[in-house]
Amino acid sequence: MRILVDMDGVLADFERGFLEKYRKQYPDKPYVLLEERRNFQVKDDYSEELQPLVKAIYQSPGFIRSLPPIAGGLEALCEMAVLGHDLFICTSPLSQYDPCVVEKYHWVDEHLGRDWIKKIILANDKTLIRGDILIDDKPEIKGLETPSWEHILYTQPYNQHVPSKRRLTWQNWKEVLRV
Amino acid sequence: MRILVDMDGVLADFERGFLEKYRKQYPDKPYVLLEERRNFQVKDDYSEELQPLVKAIYQSPGFIRSLPPIAGGLEALCEMAVLGHDLFICTSPLSQYDPCVVEKYHWVDEHLGRDWIKKIILANDKTLIRGDILIDDKPEIKGLETPSWEHILYTQPYNQHVPSKRRLTWQNWKEVLRV
Repeated sequence: MRILVDMDGVLADFERGFLEKYRKQYPDKPYVLLEERRNFQVKDDYSEELQPLVKAIYQSPGFIRSLPPIAGGLEALCEMAVLGHDLFICTSPLSQYDPCVVEKYHWVDEHLGRDWIKKIILANDKTLIRGDILIDDKPEIKGLETPSWEHILYTQPYNQHVPSKRRLTWQNWKEVLRV
Repeated sequence: MRILVDMDGVLADFERGFLEKYRKQYPDKPYVLLEERRNFQVKDDYSEELQPLVKAIYQSPGFIRSLPPIAGGLEALCEMAVLGHDLFICTSPLSQYDPCVVEKYHWVDEHLGRDWIKKIILANDKTLIRGDILIDDKPEIKGLETPSWEHILYTQPYNQHVPSKRRLTWQNWKEVLRV
């Protein structure tokens, strides 16, 4: 199988990286714990007044590159590859692409190694990428094409409400993909 | 139609950008004019001794971002879009990805505008991208899949020898695509 794996919220812990930097920089401002997040985009869980501060955090140089990995994700990726699957990291950059895009490459290089660089696909419309499975935390993935892949939702607090889709986390991916 | 358009050697004049910088930096070294180029990768047209100098030119910061556009390319792209085709810029980064990848985004932003940023697809294996046509100067494009697109070769001196493929340049694209 060709398995496409999203990056932010699936391999790289965007939410934890964000919250740590935000709370450090604005210790007196209100914040939303991961368990309480309800919107896919972190900024949408903050008031209009706080949104510029939120954006400035995740657009800042070094933010993407220094994201911690989500526990079990890198190991799962390598294990799937060993099982003979074709793995690709399929990610959409932030609209403020500098330095986001190059930092995504650095992240993969530093956490998975040089060979994985060739496995990165940067695309805004993931329906244009051919694969059997897409593991992604985004509730709905739309684009120009009917996808060739099945979307398996990577479970996060902000997508709990999405019905009728297969889901997984890096704790249960083997059972789910075996179905 | 969905038309995928390669970047280096099709929209961005990698060869001219390279040769100008190389001759300026190494005025006493031998060089290969575009008309005399025979290999797809510029370094392969230089001696082993000169190859490190050649690579250092195209890997240097600012090189990709400052590439001149190939005459007629940006206009053709916009004209195709106006005709109702879906256009995507489908490009493989240099293996030395920093600063190449972010400079590709800057190039598109500066030459085509912000709306085109979402049309960039960065992928090493272009056979994974779904489209009807791929306009690319690379002689052979291989990957994991049988392509969904027809490869139309963008004619350059270094791909003149490739037989049996439709070809175009930005001077004759309307006639070729009408066929």
